[in-house]
Amino acid sequence: MLFFRNDYGQGCVEEILNILRDINDESISGYGIDPISEQAIAMIKTKMPDVNVDVHFIVGGTLTNQTIIKHVLRPYEAVIACDSGHVAGHETGAIEATGHKVITVKNINGKLDASCIRPVFEEHMLTYEHLVYPKLVYISNATEFGTVYTREELQAIRRECDRLGLYLMMDGARLGSALMSGVDYDLNDLAKWCDVFYIGGTKNGALMGEAVVITNDALKPFFRFNLKQNGAMMAKGWLLGVQFLGLFKNDAFYQCAKHANNLAGRLQDVLVELKYPMYMLSDTNQIFPVVNKAQFEYLQQNVSFETWEVRQEDEIVIRFVTSWHTTEAEVDELIEILKEAIKL
Amino acid sequence: MLFFRNDYGQGCVEEILNILRDINDESISGYGIDPISEQAIAMIKTKMPDVNVDVHFIVGGTLTNQTIIKHVLRPYEAVIACDSGHVAGHETGAIEATGHKVITVKNINGKLDASCIRPVFEEHMLTYEHLVYPKLVYISNATEFGTVYTREELQAIRRECDRLGLYLMMDGARLGSALMSGVDYDLNDLAKWCDVFYIGGTKNGALMGEAVVITNDALKPFFRFNLKQNGAMMAKGWLLGVQFLGLFKNDAFYQCAKHANNLAGRLQDVLVELKYPMYMLSDTNQIFPVVNKAQFEYLQQNVSFETWEVRQEDEIVIRFVTSWHTTEAEVDELIEILKEAIKL
Amino acid sequence: MLFFRNDYGQGCVEEILNILRDINDESISGYGIDPISEQAIAMIKTKMPDVNVDVHFIVGGTLTNQTIIKHVLRPYEAVIACDSGHVAGHETGAIEATGHKVITVKNINGKLDASCIRPVFEEHMLTYEHLVYPKLVYISNATEFGTVYTREELQAIRRECDRLGLYLMMDGARLGSALMSGVDYDLNDLAKWCDVFYIGGTKNGALMGEAVVITNDALKPFFRFNLKQNGAMMAKGWLLGVQFLGLFKNDAFYQCAKHANNLAGRLQDVLVELKYPMYMLSDTNQIFPVVNKAQFEYLQQNVSFETWEVRQEDEIVIRFVTSWHTTEAEVDELIEILKEAIKL
Amino acid sequence: MLFFRNDYGQGCVEEILNILRDINDESISGYGIDPISEQAIAMIKTKMPDVNVDVHFIVGGTLTNQTIIKHVLRPYEAVIACDSGHVAGHETGAIEATGHKVITVKNINGKLDASCIRPVFEEHMLTYEHLVYPKLVYISNATEFGTVYTREELQAIRRECDRLGLYLMMDGARLGSALMSGVDYDLNDLAKWCDVFYIGGTKNGALMGEAVVITNDALKPFFRFNLKQNGAMMAKGWLLGVQFLGLFKNDAFYQCAKHANNLAGRLQDVLVELKYPMYMLSDTNQIFPVVNKAQFEYLQQNVSFETWEVRQEDEIVIRFVTSWHTTEAEVDELIEILKEAIKL
Repeated sequence: MLFFRNDYGQGCVEEILNILRDINDESISGYGIDPISEQAIAMIKTKMPDVNVDVHFIVGGTLTNQTIIKHVLRPYEAVIACDSGHVAGHETGAIEATGHKVITVKNINGKLDASCIRPVFEEHMLTYEHLVYPKLVYISNATEFGTVYTREELQAIRRECDRLGLYLMMDGARLGSALMSGVDYDLNDLAKWCDVFYIGGTKNGALMGEAVVITNDALKPFFRFNLKQNGAMMAKGWLLGVQFLGLFKNDAFYQCAKHANNLAGRLQDVLVELKYPMYMLSDTNQIFPVVNKAQFEYLQQNVSFETWEVRQEDEIVIRFVTSWHTTEAEVDELIEILKEAIKL
Repeated sequence: MLFFRNDYGQGCVEEILNILRDINDESISGYGIDPISEQAIAMIKTKMPDVNVDVHFIVGGTLTNQTIIKHVLRPYEAVIACDSGHVAGHETGAIEATGHKVITVKNINGKLDASCIRPVFEEHMLTYEHLVYPKLVYISNATEFGTVYTREELQAIRRECDRLGLYLMMDGARLGSALMSGVDYDLNDLAKWCDVFYIGGTKNGALMGEAVVITNDALKPFFRFNLKQNGAMMAKGWLLGVQFLGLFKNDAFYQCAKHANNLAGRLQDVLVELKYPMYMLSDTNQIFPVVNKAQFEYLQQNVSFETWEVRQEDEIVIRFVTSWHTTEAEVDELIEILKEAIKL
Repeated sequence: MLFFRNDYGQGCVEEILNILRDINDESISGYGIDPISEQAIAMIKTKMPDVNVDVHFIVGGTLTNQTIIKHVLRPYEAVIACDSGHVAGHETGAIEATGHKVITVKNINGKLDASCIRPVFEEHMLTYEHLVYPKLVYISNATEFGTVYTREELQAIRRECDRLGLYLMMDGARLGSALMSGVDYDLNDLAKWCDVFYIGGTKNGALMGEAVVITNDALKPFFRFNLKQNGAMMAKGWLLGVQFLGLFKNDAFYQCAKHANNLAGRLQDVLVELKYPMYMLSDTNQIFPVVNKAQFEYLQQNVSFETWEVRQEDEIVIRFVTSWHTTEAEVDELIEILKEAIKL
Repeated sequence: MLFFRNDYGQGCVEEILNILRDINDESISGYGIDPISEQAIAMIKTKMPDVNVDVHFIVGGTLTNQTIIKHVLRPYEAVIACDSGHVAGHETGAIEATGHKVITVKNINGKLDASCIRPVFEEHMLTYEHLVYPKLVYISNATEFGTVYTREELQAIRRECDRLGLYLMMDGARLGSALMSGVDYDLNDLAKWCDVFYIGGTKNGALMGEAVVITNDALKPFFRFNLKQNGAMMAKGWLLGVQFLGLFKNDAFYQCAKHANNLAGRLQDVLVELKYPMYMLSDTNQIFPVVNKAQFEYLQQNVSFETWEVRQEDEIVIRFVTSWHTTEAEVDELIEILKEAIKL
């Protein structure tokens, strides 16, 4: 069956498998302090020449969000996120489990708009200590809906954070897709705008792993204590170094994302052309057509995909995701199926 | 200056002061296990003859909400509350600090409507372990807007909880006001409908104290461990027993609430008659007129009250609260001031 | 029955009862920001003229320890306490419930010796992020065994904290007893030596309440957010102000403690004279004789006291406590009983 | 340089690398619910035919301990562990971070003796809700010192847990070594004795991963919610399935452990023969000789190992660890070095 369910459905790019095999018999020190991790970190740092950053690797996204937020906030401080943000819902209360409230604002095409920050902040200042103190703005880029922040949007958010004394954190589980979507900014810019962000490996060609980049000097010390306490320090920490070495030494990170975006773009164009209603127009590798029940059932017999939202019995939002692993041929095949389905 | 700011602005009813003085030299054992607390508990139990309940006293509302919720829920379980619920905002993240998410639904006149529960539950079941498990429905009665649940509304919520296997918790910080607002139910009914609720003393004539009533047998064991761990077990625990002894031995609890409701009712009638727009029509001792800027300033010079919401520069929701301590004369005086203000 | 069970077995000193009655009908603003609390705070500050301090009131000891420690420490930081310290055991894991480990060292006569701090610190630095970071030294004064730190001991602890960059916190649940035990230091000195400490009211003549004194500027901001989040902000916060106003306006705080110490001293002298073995020689109002089984049973019929430790069937450590409320006559009576018991 | 530092210093057994490569292009569903994980779980279950168990995979040991303990205990419940237990120290307060106290008893050769459980339990029952409720006994097998529990020791602990109503949890980070040390019990027995335990992959030939086995029916429901909330659910969860498929399909799990134990046994014999004092006689793959300063420095130039404890300047406990990856030749070489060192 065709697989368009997600971007973490297959193993990893060849480079990573090869390094794994090549170093399998080397003796390497543990807990993420080793030559491989250092090499990977050095490569990542070259992408952000203007900022002095700390880089740490964590195995997955929820653990990363949890560890960063626990590290950054004091007990009474809270996160501002949009309602579609991953931390707002899809992590089984992982952030609340660290003691912090997530204050949500309505998303606009999956994004948090800079204009939403000040009202939340000011409302919370009104009765001061009777409410949490909103202190960290969390955004995902690309968003959970596949959209991407523009340079202007990010700068506006940064300015608002500066004015109000807030931290800006970017969840980059799909950062590769965002950077390869045609935007006019890069990792170096993000390092200037965010206090902390991460570069997602899991959804962009690695077996696992997110690279946390801390740019704010005040947030750097003692991060490894929180890593360890949160169960996020791997014994064979170099495994995560391998992932990012594989992604960055020949720029597989960028190529994978570009590849996935291109295929998704083609798919979205065809969907629009075929007159499928679209839930949202995506900039990256996640595509959200709306189908009727007959179409849904037909597609289910031929393609693996996710149901996003059942709006009405006959109006179902579904999600197709392309990845580093998707082929042109698979997209061709999906298009043929969609051409059949639209007739139903 | 006239005081209509809140219902916890003065000391306590005479009965409580008298008991305090009478027993000041008695030697009493600590931590809430003492003859006075036992007597108070016994009196409270007589109000719920049909249900076998456990009763515990806690000094204040936030500590009570926190202790109950931490006791009842497992780590991944969450609270459903309406967005105006006290736990949803005005406790500085006290619930999240215990690790639990508060899922909010839109309030209807300050109330959580039974019909809102199932959609939240079902939405969370869709992706199951990727979201928190909504397990406890939290309602306040009277609500934060002074409205009161009807018998039918409470029964509908209870039915929904039964169907979905949820606990029902009632925050009764202003339960006296609710019970004295003309409803056709009493403490005995509440004990049948709620798994746990509390009877507020602080806002109804006591110096402090909430009486937690646990009706669900499964939730009774080990509550005192959570009390102690949460810092909610007082050395001189009998102080809280004194409050409820004072409130219940001559039914001051009911009289105070009725008195406050009556005065508020009269005040609300006058406000309507004077054609002040009302934010919401209250059933109890909190009244929410909307005033313009000139009125606001005039009132501020003469009365102590709370600003509820600044909707526009010239549309300010304010709150007047009556209490066990408010006098007819004070209401008369306030009415005269309001008659002046309406001209502005 | 004679009561020597604890120092929180009766109500409060006359001053407090009187103020309560005097202001019962005043309208006072809530949450601890009111003229009474301010007056009490001002009085306390006059005792520490050399240090600029913040003062906050909390209803009881466990809640106070929990709120302070949660406020002061970052998630991976830990407390160093001696094994007899209140936070180490008798708070049902209240400190761990805030996420922090309590590292214990062996007590010496109930005290933490300065020489114990460095080894703990250095041991934890060895593997660094694999262990918690010990950051706060917790001591009780008077200790849980009634002993009192000398000026030299406190200064030695302070020096060690300075060298290692640690905070010093003093649990002063029985601080009155310590200060009235003949030591050559006072509140002003403590304000110089501690980063944060508290002055206990509950066990020294108040109905309830501990006065937290924060001396370290870095620890002052946002304390009220943690107060509120931790359920430690009372609606009628002025009740706690009343306690400390009563204790400090005529120095009842010192007189109560001195009175209790004097009676206990006399009792301890008699016990030694009667040749009761002593578990520990106390400097304050808690006395720990060791009795055999027959003595234990005889005493139990006549006096209310606490069993401290059953070392062997015939070697039982018991605790007598005197308080602001104990009379000379009660001590006389207890002495007569002890004279009988020693014959058994 | 010779590597005897730990048992997680190299990649993984050939089987695992091969499966990784073989399935790299397969499309597999996420979050640990996939055919590979199911196959691995089925294999593990065949080792415990007499007990109906649930199996879950988690990436590392600290995260596993944290997730299990958070799942099993209610807020006021605590862990009993020996002072050398991994959760007692070397996890940066990970257990306390979930809100639970770890009560320690003195280890005997790295083990918790059954006779230590009851005194701890009874001491905590004395003042009941003023202390935590000890509810889970945590043991490591093999222990942190390489020793192994006998059948009789485990049964004695189990009996004590049954009598007192406690859970028994076994940290099996090095369970392979324990099972291959010549004991007369197997996984099937452990499944009968423990309420929950885990089978360590990380230190026995896998890239990563611990297999949690829940045997107590009451502890099975909702474990995946805690997995997710704790950041312990991997997107590509099948990666963990691969590890255990590789370890169990040809019993590499047992062979690796046996191999490591044999080499360590030989090494220990030689050390004893050479008259090195031994810190403790190990049953498994961790060996603890005591060396003087000159020996220490000589060894450091030739071998990578861990310093366990500096008892005195001239008495240093060091640790050699063998693994699935260690060769006979490496042990020969180490022995030659040790023969030289003993002369110093």
